[in-house]
Amino acid sequence: MSADLSGLPKTIWWDVDANDGIPGVYLIDQTRLPLQGDVLCCRTLEGVEIAIRSLALRGAPVLGVAAAMAVAVYSENECPATSTEEWLEAIDAACERIAAARPTAVNLSWGAEAALDFAHRKVSAGAGLAEAKSALVEFAKQMAVDDEVTNRTIGKNGAALLFPKSNVLTICNAGSLATAYFGTALGVVYEGYDRGKVDHVWVTETRPVNQGARLTTWELKTAGVSHALIIDSMAASVMARGWVDAVVVGADRICSNGDTANKIGTLSLAVLAKHFAIPFYVCAPESTIDRGLIDGSQIPIEQRDPRELAGFTASGVILPDDAATSSALDLLTAEGPRALKFKVGHEMTLERKGGAYSVDAWFATTPPGTEIYNPAFDVTPANLISSIITEKGVFSPGNLG
Amino acid sequence: MSADLSGLPKTIWWDVDANDGIPGVYLIDQTRLPLQGDVLCCRTLEGVEIAIRSLALRGAPVLGVAAAMAVAVYSENECPATSTEEWLEAIDAACERIAAARPTAVNLSWGAEAALDFAHRKVSAGAGLAEAKSALVEFAKQMAVDDEVTNRTIGKNGAALLFPKSNVLTICNAGSLATAYFGTALGVVYEGYDRGKVDHVWVTETRPVNQGARLTTWELKTAGVSHALIIDSMAASVMARGWVDAVVVGADRICSNGDTANKIGTLSLAVLAKHFAIPFYVCAPESTIDRGLIDGSQIPIEQRDPRELAGFTASGVILPDDAATSSALDLLTAEGPRALKFKVGHEMTLERKGGAYSVDAWFATTPPGTEIYNPAFDVTPANLISSIITEKGVFSPGNLG
Repeated sequence: MSADLSGLPKTIWWDVDANDGIPGVYLIDQTRLPLQGDVLCCRTLEGVEIAIRSLALRGAPVLGVAAAMAVAVYSENECPATSTEEWLEAIDAACERIAAARPTAVNLSWGAEAALDFAHRKVSAGAGLAEAKSALVEFAKQMAVDDEVTNRTIGKNGAALLFPKSNVLTICNAGSLATAYFGTALGVVYEGYDRGKVDHVWVTETRPVNQGARLTTWELKTAGVSHALIIDSMAASVMARGWVDAVVVGADRICSNGDTANKIGTLSLAVLAKHFAIPFYVCAPESTIDRGLIDGSQIPIEQRDPRELAGFTASGVILPDDAATSSALDLLTAEGPRALKFKVGHEMTLERKGGAYSVDAWFATTPPGTEIYNPAFDVTPANLISSIITEKGVFSPGNLG
Repeated sequence: MSADLSGLPKTIWWDVDANDGIPGVYLIDQTRLPLQGDVLCCRTLEGVEIAIRSLALRGAPVLGVAAAMAVAVYSENECPATSTEEWLEAIDAACERIAAARPTAVNLSWGAEAALDFAHRKVSAGAGLAEAKSALVEFAKQMAVDDEVTNRTIGKNGAALLFPKSNVLTICNAGSLATAYFGTALGVVYEGYDRGKVDHVWVTETRPVNQGARLTTWELKTAGVSHALIIDSMAASVMARGWVDAVVVGADRICSNGDTANKIGTLSLAVLAKHFAIPFYVCAPESTIDRGLIDGSQIPIEQRDPRELAGFTASGVILPDDAATSSALDLLTAEGPRALKFKVGHEMTLERKGGAYSVDAWFATTPPGTEIYNPAFDVTPANLISSIITEKGVFSPGNLG
């Protein structure tokens, strides 16, 4: 069996609208997957920022690409500069702003800085404003191309470590959707599946935003890779049964001593893997390594909205199957989106969309006012990591090269 | 600070309807908590079975009480026996049926057998049919009373083990709602809070049915005990920060060697507790110990409906705040419950309930057809358990007395 990636879309791309000629950053809205595959078009820096904050776009490697594209789209559509000096000053501010969109992933600031460095070099080399702006766009587009090359190399390096027919377990989505294309931990899976190194993938749900249940299952199904979904706390149970041969995860930031920040729940998997004597592999591009940080205690950990735990969001499209249903829904939505008032907790809005009706809802599961702790990441100490796999090779976490 | 349990309801009780004189098993519908507090009345054996299978009633200790009450309600309302011989035969079959409602919790069969033994002893002692039936009802009612006494003793035994101002972490709901009243692991918390032994409780969400997020938060809030909700996979993170002094959990079945089946995710917490050198306490009544089982490999593990992971259920009551909304919803629900058809995955039904409208929905989160593994329990080996706390005392798991 081999993985068939032909059905997987690019995660992010640069395009120019055929009608109005305005460029934009296009991306798959991952908050709608797996049931809908909306594409968002961001024509402003703020648009990309919102996409990142809302998790429409997520995954450390692709955030690097997104940061560069955000700066380029700012430069093209918003920057009022009339000289290269003004331009460099303006895009410097844009870089700072996009780098701050989420604090834990180092790739955001890495991508922004790469774009800024490029711009400075271009100007230093004598480029005029128009030439420099245009080159910056090409630079950002090239980052997406380079990211895929990087990931394919990580895939090869990682697959080489696996024994034939391994059952691997993963958390969150370190797949094609977390990168420009192909993925890091799932890149190892795709390459491994082709080579007979991977037999089956255990996909952990990855609360609270369910990136495993929503995105990784969708990718693996699309690629035809054998897999099953479990909840996060079932990992111990499948490991205890001997059903896991390796754990492969991505990374949001790796310190110089090998301590690694990744999606909340990763530390738990690393402790379990050690207990059950299962190798634990971190798969990430070199750009994820932050050599300025000595150890994991220095990694800022993003706290997210408590509502991610206090309830769940749901969206869907109602197709009325008779005239009575249509009439009633038309009555409700005649004046635009209609918010329905619930007795407790829940929120729901109905809206007419052509001949269908969209539902957007949030359903409370906890008592109102429950105190909630919602860190998005945890830090796995280097001593629980078997190897860190980058495009440069396979490293011991204590010796990152 | 002390815990105030006055707002917590009994979980299960026997009552006779004032209008028609028919007895029933009454219970809090825990699938509706924390936002609604419906009471179910089960007048048949099948009614109690459905309540147990749907998790309207759950929690090992209360399942023992429920089994005895189910047999008693069968005896009162359904059993056609005209002699004590016929009666014993009929309730024997009822016991077998209720014991099979869920396979992992030993308390179901324990409660059913206790009721059956009592019936046999009563008949052997010369009781006639009417007297024996009436005594069986009193026996089942007494089990609820005894369960609370047992739990209060477990609470005292467990609280004695804690250091002052401990931060404890728990999974699922081993609280008052898991028992007739007071709880096992949360019994230790309630008693500990009164004595200054417990300062704060970390409540894990407990996927897939969220008993922690829905039930334990509600109990602790009602009792005024300081707590915060985390997702299951955040346990490692709070432990790594030194924020957990003890883990307290319930049990569904304990083998003679101390291996313990409990809610899926418990094994993960036990491995983490060992890694971070945190004591791990199992709190359960003596009836949870199945001395017929040598070790955990013999415990049957219940597999549940994959839909528990493939999406989420939501229920709520819409209060229309204007005439237009009422009219439209009346149109939709005029002929009874109205199922709305979604483009993908979701299901939703609207129904008129007096002046309000109820919504019952299931929202898919995974791609249709995703393979899912959904064991309800895992087995924690005795060597990861610090102590097993019962009403008889505190035991080393290797020496259950």
